[in-house]
Amino acid sequence: MSDKINRIVLAFSGGLDTSVILKWLQQTYNCEVVTFTADLGQGEELEPARAKARLMGVKEEHIFIDDLREEFVADYVFPMMRSNALYEGLYLLGTSIARPLIAKRQIEIAKMVGADAVSHGATGKGNDQVRFELGYYALSPDIKVIAPWREWDLTSRTKLIEFAEKNQIPIAKDKRGESPFSTDANMLHTSSEGKVLEDPWDEVPDYVYSRTVNPEDAPDAPEYITIDFERGDGVAINGVAMSPATLLETLNDYGRKHGIGRLDLVENRFVGMKSRGMYETPGGTIYHFAHRGIEQVTLDRGAAHLKDELAPRYAELIYNGFWFSPEREMLQAAIDHSQEKVTGTVRLKLYKGGVYIVGRKSPYSLYSEKVVTFEDDAGAYDQRDAAGFIKLNALRLRLLGRRDR
Amino acid sequence: MSDKINRIVLAFSGGLDTSVILKWLQQTYNCEVVTFTADLGQGEELEPARAKARLMGVKEEHIFIDDLREEFVADYVFPMMRSNALYEGLYLLGTSIARPLIAKRQIEIAKMVGADAVSHGATGKGNDQVRFELGYYALSPDIKVIAPWREWDLTSRTKLIEFAEKNQIPIAKDKRGESPFSTDANMLHTSSEGKVLEDPWDEVPDYVYSRTVNPEDAPDAPEYITIDFERGDGVAINGVAMSPATLLETLNDYGRKHGIGRLDLVENRFVGMKSRGMYETPGGTIYHFAHRGIEQVTLDRGAAHLKDELAPRYAELIYNGFWFSPEREMLQAAIDHSQEKVTGTVRLKLYKGGVYIVGRKSPYSLYSEKVVTFEDDAGAYDQRDAAGFIKLNALRLRLLGRRDR
Amino acid sequence: MSDKINRIVLAFSGGLDTSVILKWLQQTYNCEVVTFTADLGQGEELEPARAKARLMGVKEEHIFIDDLREEFVADYVFPMMRSNALYEGLYLLGTSIARPLIAKRQIEIAKMVGADAVSHGATGKGNDQVRFELGYYALSPDIKVIAPWREWDLTSRTKLIEFAEKNQIPIAKDKRGESPFSTDANMLHTSSEGKVLEDPWDEVPDYVYSRTVNPEDAPDAPEYITIDFERGDGVAINGVAMSPATLLETLNDYGRKHGIGRLDLVENRFVGMKSRGMYETPGGTIYHFAHRGIEQVTLDRGAAHLKDELAPRYAELIYNGFWFSPEREMLQAAIDHSQEKVTGTVRLKLYKGGVYIVGRKSPYSLYSEKVVTFEDDAGAYDQRDAAGFIKLNALRLRLLGRRDR
Amino acid sequence: MSDKINRIVLAFSGGLDTSVILKWLQQTYNCEVVTFTADLGQGEELEPARAKARLMGVKEEHIFIDDLREEFVADYVFPMMRSNALYEGLYLLGTSIARPLIAKRQIEIAKMVGADAVSHGATGKGNDQVRFELGYYALSPDIKVIAPWREWDLTSRTKLIEFAEKNQIPIAKDKRGESPFSTDANMLHTSSEGKVLEDPWDEVPDYVYSRTVNPEDAPDAPEYITIDFERGDGVAINGVAMSPATLLETLNDYGRKHGIGRLDLVENRFVGMKSRGMYETPGGTIYHFAHRGIEQVTLDRGAAHLKDELAPRYAELIYNGFWFSPEREMLQAAIDHSQEKVTGTVRLKLYKGGVYIVGRKSPYSLYSEKVVTFEDDAGAYDQRDAAGFIKLNALRLRLLGRRDR
Repeated sequence: MSDKINRIVLAFSGGLDTSVILKWLQQTYNCEVVTFTADLGQGEELEPARAKARLMGVKEEHIFIDDLREEFVADYVFPMMRSNALYEGLYLLGTSIARPLIAKRQIEIAKMVGADAVSHGATGKGNDQVRFELGYYALSPDIKVIAPWREWDLTSRTKLIEFAEKNQIPIAKDKRGESPFSTDANMLHTSSEGKVLEDPWDEVPDYVYSRTVNPEDAPDAPEYITIDFERGDGVAINGVAMSPATLLETLNDYGRKHGIGRLDLVENRFVGMKSRGMYETPGGTIYHFAHRGIEQVTLDRGAAHLKDELAPRYAELIYNGFWFSPEREMLQAAIDHSQEKVTGTVRLKLYKGGVYIVGRKSPYSLYSEKVVTFEDDAGAYDQRDAAGFIKLNALRLRLLGRRDR
Repeated sequence: MSDKINRIVLAFSGGLDTSVILKWLQQTYNCEVVTFTADLGQGEELEPARAKARLMGVKEEHIFIDDLREEFVADYVFPMMRSNALYEGLYLLGTSIARPLIAKRQIEIAKMVGADAVSHGATGKGNDQVRFELGYYALSPDIKVIAPWREWDLTSRTKLIEFAEKNQIPIAKDKRGESPFSTDANMLHTSSEGKVLEDPWDEVPDYVYSRTVNPEDAPDAPEYITIDFERGDGVAINGVAMSPATLLETLNDYGRKHGIGRLDLVENRFVGMKSRGMYETPGGTIYHFAHRGIEQVTLDRGAAHLKDELAPRYAELIYNGFWFSPEREMLQAAIDHSQEKVTGTVRLKLYKGGVYIVGRKSPYSLYSEKVVTFEDDAGAYDQRDAAGFIKLNALRLRLLGRRDR
Repeated sequence: MSDKINRIVLAFSGGLDTSVILKWLQQTYNCEVVTFTADLGQGEELEPARAKARLMGVKEEHIFIDDLREEFVADYVFPMMRSNALYEGLYLLGTSIARPLIAKRQIEIAKMVGADAVSHGATGKGNDQVRFELGYYALSPDIKVIAPWREWDLTSRTKLIEFAEKNQIPIAKDKRGESPFSTDANMLHTSSEGKVLEDPWDEVPDYVYSRTVNPEDAPDAPEYITIDFERGDGVAINGVAMSPATLLETLNDYGRKHGIGRLDLVENRFVGMKSRGMYETPGGTIYHFAHRGIEQVTLDRGAAHLKDELAPRYAELIYNGFWFSPEREMLQAAIDHSQEKVTGTVRLKLYKGGVYIVGRKSPYSLYSEKVVTFEDDAGAYDQRDAAGFIKLNALRLRLLGRRDR
Repeated sequence: MSDKINRIVLAFSGGLDTSVILKWLQQTYNCEVVTFTADLGQGEELEPARAKARLMGVKEEHIFIDDLREEFVADYVFPMMRSNALYEGLYLLGTSIARPLIAKRQIEIAKMVGADAVSHGATGKGNDQVRFELGYYALSPDIKVIAPWREWDLTSRTKLIEFAEKNQIPIAKDKRGESPFSTDANMLHTSSEGKVLEDPWDEVPDYVYSRTVNPEDAPDAPEYITIDFERGDGVAINGVAMSPATLLETLNDYGRKHGIGRLDLVENRFVGMKSRGMYETPGGTIYHFAHRGIEQVTLDRGAAHLKDELAPRYAELIYNGFWFSPEREMLQAAIDHSQEKVTGTVRLKLYKGGVYIVGRKSPYSLYSEKVVTFEDDAGAYDQRDAAGFIKLNALRLRLLGRRDR
């Protein structure tokens, strides 16, 4: 295995950091760099990335800009949402779930262009380096991975800017100064962390939020919507059929308007430290509750409780970067098996930051008014059965009680 | 074991149903009935229960009215809240957690007065019969249990009223007609179910709510509060030390005012059917988030994730009535072990139905700005370590990738 | 729903108990009884069951005798074995796994012959009644279930014999007296319980064993065999391809000869009591270890550990009778997903009650001598990576240590 | 944080490897080295270690030789055995459980002598480096850790011997050549791995075993013993009270004689690779089954099943080196809570490699012949209760069956 690298595929946003990385890779490894820019619905123009790559000498056929929005929602966000996963009880995993798709596409491109290395712009303290690299290695075990933030000596903002200037890398005006926090965005969420957010006692300043209005500024009247599900996935809003990405974007609009999905979290990173982040997941938050709602009437108790027990582990796997692992796939197989009849309609009320499930119906509903009713149930349920049920459930406790009490 | 019963302790609310039961027990078993009425903060006068018991011939020394509010919060609600348990992802278990305490006290009274049987007013379709009776049997394995709703022939409201009239049992005016839903209340929550709530597609009518204002009618300005925790339990609000029950009552006031803690749920009963309930848990909802908040800075990741994995099982045990079981106690031992340093202050924003964690601090905080900072960390964390960390985490995936891809 | 029953399908062994049940059903319900006798490899002649059914007036076309041996092993035993399930750490679930297949076939016959009820000969204290009936109800929710042992007044052996004599039911000579224990058998195992086994301090007498020689009487020389697996299931012994049932029968012969698979167990029944049983699972025990062996080289750690964590729950579901439940199917989906590359050969040593895995190889082996070797590994593994791996795994413990120690 | 090291505590066996390390540390770090040699019942003379340390210039007061045998069994082996933990279904964790105690004592000594660093002789590919170092960091977060095998250039046996010769380190005659495998031993087990064991298809040669006779050479007659337990821990053999270490040693003698506790395993290391090891755990294997046996009659089902579900995770934590972690302590708290009544006597048959539980009794037995009996139980159990029990357990499956079948 020689250490000489011939061609590197870089996950390239077109921003200052990955532009510096692009140049640094070209200089340090003296080899061709291929750029890959993904549209995951982060809401930025991607053509400037193309221009920048060209400017820095990347060959036309080595500039990849891919619209992955539908794949992102259909093959990553929706499968995850089927699990109702919440990392540490609260977080919808918006960053975590995007990384495996980027890694997968990057490896596909590496194979196409015959590259022997990949690179990314994630720092050495965060989770994203792990997520990217576990994806790379799982999909291409012998690929070389270059993580400039762990290798170079551009260890301060000042040095980075100096490097950019020395190398004629254009610097957007607002990037000259230190940003008061750093962000990551895709169609599912925007995360913010660092600097002004670093003291977990200080409330997140309002200017940090970018994807949602402040609940206090949201409409004074609630709005009702319905979401239709088929086999566990959303397919329509208010009766209008939509593709996965369109559906999520539409929910994002509702969420933005009603101030839904803001989360201020102190979380435990896989690399061993606690960090404080602020997340906005407008549409995803609505979707999460809607999915819970449709499962309430269509999922059997045994399936539902097993899912609830597996969900924290599943969430942890995604958070830690193990999307492409046998154990995540095993859990997915179990979860997906449960979703066959998760079909129907949920009605939601959106109001000033809140999502309320107010109705659910399904052709496959397991809810039986006939059985549960306080009224005469015409023999659908024999209350006397409960006596035996309790007696046998109590038997071991009685034997124990006789011994211990 | 003779079947003749000598003395029965009845869980007696003083309402129509348990009054009818009291009379029915006296007639059917031709024996003394002892009444036990618990103050769990349900917000009702209890002296009328005494008067009613007297009227129906219960001896003065056989009328028990106990204020269990502090015990309820300190020994049941708080231990449960340490787990962050949510039944089926959403429900704070307000009814479930009250039943074991009632059962325990009822058995204590049975022992005091030499009763050989206990009785309750829960129906044969619900979970509460199970919770009461598992408690009875666990604590007094040979007690006789009488569940009138599973035994008698008063199977309709009309027959019940007839029985009451025939036996000179006073009937409150508003109880003559059918109530449009049934409720249960204690300091932690009020639940409502049945009749007008039976179609899970229909929104819960506003008149069903009794413990919270409609979020739309809540104040237009947010309110901030702090809660102090010591070893996992709340001890002060806004810096003012309070007993457990006072603390929960105070949070109930905040929750009521801001429309917090409403939940419309279709859930899976232990007896095998789905039911639709509406829950109001104003203070408990605030407390739940506050506890999550203080754990965020004081709990290690290993402890936090293990707790998250155990919580669904723990919630199921409480919901199903297994409070007095070895497995619930084992989980409690694990959970309690984790809470020793869960001490500090959480700051919350309350606004129109929403609870937002906005700050947390602790003398035992594990959050280290020095380690996590984007700035120079003076060697607190060596980014190069991440390379090895990722490499070894990836090793098995690479071996797998070489085999499978 | 009328209570009049028209036709009953009885699980009929042809023995005394189910013969009495057959007659009792005919008399009590005054309706046609259809008999179903399954060959699950229990090693008994089935034609006598046919003769007996005829004798008792069952119509020729209502006598069902089915050879289910291959289906039993392929669709029930093997899928279960993929999980490595052991109930309470030791028991290979030989009785439990047969019940769902009997229930399924009984329901199929009920549908074929237009029966509205099914019946079985399991007693009211055991697990089998639960397993049969959960199967019936899951597959045919409105079927009527008749469990004579819970209904009739033939509550002693004497009464049963009297009933048989009065009704001209032939009684085998050796069935007149009380058997010193009761047994159940199928191709996977024989279980014995009751009477002489009821004191768990007394060693099981040697005459109770019927499927294995006493290890002390087994050959003095060990014997080596190989088992080939494909996708998690056994396909050949010593290189000779075999059907599932033939493979299990062949392993039973090996197990019998070498005294393998005896288990004396005190277990917890689903109905709430402890019981003491003696199990002989000769071939199944060999198979269980062989499957562990092949997984050792073909299963990734993540998959293997997840399987180990799910196995106790899976075992409990099967033991309790929930084979036909969504949660068992979900776990099966996860387990089956892991078995795709569980292909290869295991070599075993059999000696006086012991099974020893002594070798395993696979075209899909994940074991890499190159990586693990104590010798020079030519860069396959960089020992320096371990430093970073440990450092980041230790980080949270160090932060904790600084706080707590 | 200065990098200058003043004093190092080395885990020192007195063998060739740690002797070389001792010298290398003295030379490389130019500082005092303190040696710590633990007696964990590995069955070697420890005084030669003292002589060797002296010879290499370690000060008298810096040579620590501690008998940790009782602490090892009482505080590490027994607590672990309470869990019934088996790593990957088969392995009794004999190496893993010794490491935290060594690390703990090493840190205690470091504090006593004012050392700022610790060192060990584990290689960079194994689990032991992780176990040692996680222990060090958890107990002394700012300690410096030196792992020579990951740092030096003595990467072959030849170089090691050269270094030893050059530095006048005595080399035992049998250590000159390459050993055909490497071993680790303590009172619980001996492990062997490497070289002749590296092909997992090859049977382990008989000369590798050192702690047990070959089952084929074990006595031809079985031997029976009893073990008494109190609160989950062994306290006597054949009625003779013993300290923990004496009890384990005595069981080791029985196990050795009868060829018990040999295990040939391919396992998954925490560092990401598979390895093949051979373990001999003679007494521990007997103890493991005995503990299962006493739990069978004293543990409630709920506790037993929860323990079985937690055990794989607990085993993984110990294997991976997380003994000193909050999550291991939480699980221990749960497990220990279950052991209060695990008191009584187990009778075992030992025969040619096999351990058979043949009897168990306890003053706290939950086994009730009266309830379980096939005979008339005088009303201890009402078989009719089973009907209701099954009906309600079936309810959700019936609702599901109506929808899906």
